[in-house]
Amino acid sequence: MQKIKVTIWNEFRHEKNDLPVKAIYPAGMHRAIADGIAAEDLEIRLASLDEPEQGLPDALLASTDVLFWWGHRFHAEVADALVEKIQRRVLGGMGLVALHSSHMSKIFRALMGTSCTLICRVAGERERLWTVDPSHPIAAGIGRCIELEREEMYGERFDIPDDGHLIFNSWFEGGEVFRSGVAFQRGLGRIFYFAPGHEEYPTYFHADILRVLGNAARWAAPVLPPQELRCEKVPPREQLGRAR
Amino acid sequence: MQKIKVTIWNEFRHEKNDLPVKAIYPAGMHRAIADGIAAEDLEIRLASLDEPEQGLPDALLASTDVLFWWGHRFHAEVADALVEKIQRRVLGGMGLVALHSSHMSKIFRALMGTSCTLICRVAGERERLWTVDPSHPIAAGIGRCIELEREEMYGERFDIPDDGHLIFNSWFEGGEVFRSGVAFQRGLGRIFYFAPGHEEYPTYFHADILRVLGNAARWAAPVLPPQELRCEKVPPREQLGRAR
Amino acid sequence: MQKIKVTIWNEFRHEKNDLPVKAIYPAGMHRAIADGIAAEDLEIRLASLDEPEQGLPDALLASTDVLFWWGHRFHAEVADALVEKIQRRVLGGMGLVALHSSHMSKIFRALMGTSCTLICRVAGERERLWTVDPSHPIAAGIGRCIELEREEMYGERFDIPDDGHLIFNSWFEGGEVFRSGVAFQRGLGRIFYFAPGHEEYPTYFHADILRVLGNAARWAAPVLPPQELRCEKVPPREQLGRAR
Amino acid sequence: MQKIKVTIWNEFRHEKNDLPVKAIYPAGMHRAIADGIAAEDLEIRLASLDEPEQGLPDALLASTDVLFWWGHRFHAEVADALVEKIQRRVLGGMGLVALHSSHMSKIFRALMGTSCTLICRVAGERERLWTVDPSHPIAAGIGRCIELEREEMYGERFDIPDDGHLIFNSWFEGGEVFRSGVAFQRGLGRIFYFAPGHEEYPTYFHADILRVLGNAARWAAPVLPPQELRCEKVPPREQLGRAR
Repeated sequence: MQKIKVTIWNEFRHEKNDLPVKAIYPAGMHRAIADGIAAEDLEIRLASLDEPEQGLPDALLASTDVLFWWGHRFHAEVADALVEKIQRRVLGGMGLVALHSSHMSKIFRALMGTSCTLICRVAGERERLWTVDPSHPIAAGIGRCIELEREEMYGERFDIPDDGHLIFNSWFEGGEVFRSGVAFQRGLGRIFYFAPGHEEYPTYFHADILRVLGNAARWAAPVLPPQELRCEKVPPREQLGRAR
Repeated sequence: MQKIKVTIWNEFRHEKNDLPVKAIYPAGMHRAIADGIAAEDLEIRLASLDEPEQGLPDALLASTDVLFWWGHRFHAEVADALVEKIQRRVLGGMGLVALHSSHMSKIFRALMGTSCTLICRVAGERERLWTVDPSHPIAAGIGRCIELEREEMYGERFDIPDDGHLIFNSWFEGGEVFRSGVAFQRGLGRIFYFAPGHEEYPTYFHADILRVLGNAARWAAPVLPPQELRCEKVPPREQLGRAR
Repeated sequence: MQKIKVTIWNEFRHEKNDLPVKAIYPAGMHRAIADGIAAEDLEIRLASLDEPEQGLPDALLASTDVLFWWGHRFHAEVADALVEKIQRRVLGGMGLVALHSSHMSKIFRALMGTSCTLICRVAGERERLWTVDPSHPIAAGIGRCIELEREEMYGERFDIPDDGHLIFNSWFEGGEVFRSGVAFQRGLGRIFYFAPGHEEYPTYFHADILRVLGNAARWAAPVLPPQELRCEKVPPREQLGRAR
Repeated sequence: MQKIKVTIWNEFRHEKNDLPVKAIYPAGMHRAIADGIAAEDLEIRLASLDEPEQGLPDALLASTDVLFWWGHRFHAEVADALVEKIQRRVLGGMGLVALHSSHMSKIFRALMGTSCTLICRVAGERERLWTVDPSHPIAAGIGRCIELEREEMYGERFDIPDDGHLIFNSWFEGGEVFRSGVAFQRGLGRIFYFAPGHEEYPTYFHADILRVLGNAARWAAPVLPPQELRCEKVPPREQLGRAR
């Protein structure tokens, strides 16, 4: 069996610098996700912002089938050249799973074309993710809803394009709603945006959240070998200039 | 100015038979809507189930630009032949505004092709409709959200096709969410499904709800003269059988 | 391995009554398709209009994962009750592959909600199906386009809903274009409409066409056990009536 | 009446440097379009690459309701900072009509997120644009198809996102097809991509092409005052921390 090569990229700064976050995720959220979705068919590598080449040297990127991305405070530090390389890989077939605050990451916004803005609040409130498409592979094994005791509120209006296939639609205790699990295709690549995952809460230890992430890794895996999309001049297939 | 001919169809039985409903809507919900959206550019006619030809004789249907539909308990009584006529009119360009329990009406289900099922609860709870597309004509004049003190809960999963353009996404006090304002196109006709409007609450007197309904009447009005869609055999526009 | 149970339904009258058709498909188009897509992971059953219960007794329908449908002249003969049963099965998860003239079949139109009308011409002309989504599983193994020397022309405007995911877009020698391979979801079921397949041409012996059909059988197979979609009354998950 | 402020931006170099192009469009394609769509309700301004601030100083951009864009050979020269400003304006509500080779312009690609690649050929061949949505305002007054005697071929696969609403689908003499008229929404802004318009052919004098462009100007005009989309922290609307 060919394993799916998953690379989980994380800013990995909160977990080193903020004590309460460190207490929950001492080895980083990327490590918690890697442990939580570990399976025979996945080969998981970790990457983070302060590593050489911002964690994504060409060889690693080129061998990645699905890239998970968790960014928050330091979107601006990610090099534009790296963002362009990632975008080209996604358009050529690589999967992308954009997590939580990554809605404002350079790579997600580049792929959406929109502002990806929303309203938000950190108040440790209840979130309930309702399954809108139970037949989607990403929702496999998830019941009618996922309940999180404490999450950051992300609310509408979420500025994303209209072709997002809605898989989860969230309710928040404070009164808002949010399209919290949305699937896209860009070029030949599949993209899944999944909203939960504020660094101060143990979201990435929640069984259902991990199940969704594991499902997403498999769903987003490319079906074709990597492609480079290019314009191409072609000869006609029919004779031109004939009478009618 | 050519007025938009709006016909508001209502079962109009709750308001005659249930005292609490009658107290709120003594002349029927259709009348409350008609009064609430009355404007110079709209010519509004009322119709109901117990009238001759179930309220929609051919001449009235043929001269309707936009049909509002409120049905609930008596969907099954609406004649299949009438439903077919309405569907043909919508495909030919007539607008349809399907209200509240009309998600299970024959006409809405025929146009969607899906089961249109959902989860529900009548408990007089708070609903908040968040505006997802503030630039849509149907949301004109509506702020970030509409708040209703008491409504029936309609919750996900709402079984509708994926091409619904989401305009309102609802939060409910009891913990659910619902795509409560959704726009579709079928054939040449525009369709707007709008969830609020349980008969026991004064929803159709709420200024924002009425504003949405007035906007919907204008948005759903046909842009072309009525069409009859047919398959057609056509001659070739290019010479066939030439070499390549 | 659990095999995918494919039932190929065909009117199977042209092949018995029209000599030129019989010459191409002596055992029926359904048999040609079955032979052409035969594989270890598919269990294929044949069904046709003139068999008892119009070929689809309840037990067969209930055990079908993916239903192929070829209809043309005799759509009107298919019993409404059977159409309703098939629709309920699709909404509950069964796949449907609608072939050629089945665009006007009762079952396809019931699931689309539109008129499904188009323009057409039988003139034995060249068709070229361009692959619009090479990353879709249905296009696996297909190159830039499929070329058919002789097909019936189906042309725009094709009246289908806007959520059809376009996989193939066709060119015709006589000057028309057509969205010839389109994927939909209705309820929990997947639907693929595939235009080629006029009875007078040997389309169902073409390697690429058969490859698409085999891909479609696997893509449309349900991911969940069959469901019956119903509205449901539910209790609140949060306490109602609290102050704000 | 408030006029719609249309700014037509053009590279305007072919028309100065290539004699055959100059012969057709001595004052530039932007001038031909401006003359061709001139109407009481439109206030049209011209802009081009070699003017100060690449033709789009802040004041002009800020007062533009709908921006037309024709670019081809010199996409790379357009300043990234200008592209960002235009994108922000589109997301805030400004309309964009992207013409012909502008499929590869920085601004169109930034808004799509995809590669926008295609196949192409300049051979002076026949193109026929079939109307796929006759009820769309952009197709108003257009019949079943538009026929151009000579155009550049643009063919599938066109790498654009799936939410493009298809209005025109093109046939080419040489054997290809292309989604040649596609409408998008990004943020609060409307975008129309329209493929015809190779500089060596008199496409922008064709009555139907001009009618589509005039329709597009009106359709893409903003419905709201310009907005700046931002993330925003908000207080809860419901009391948090209550028991269930």
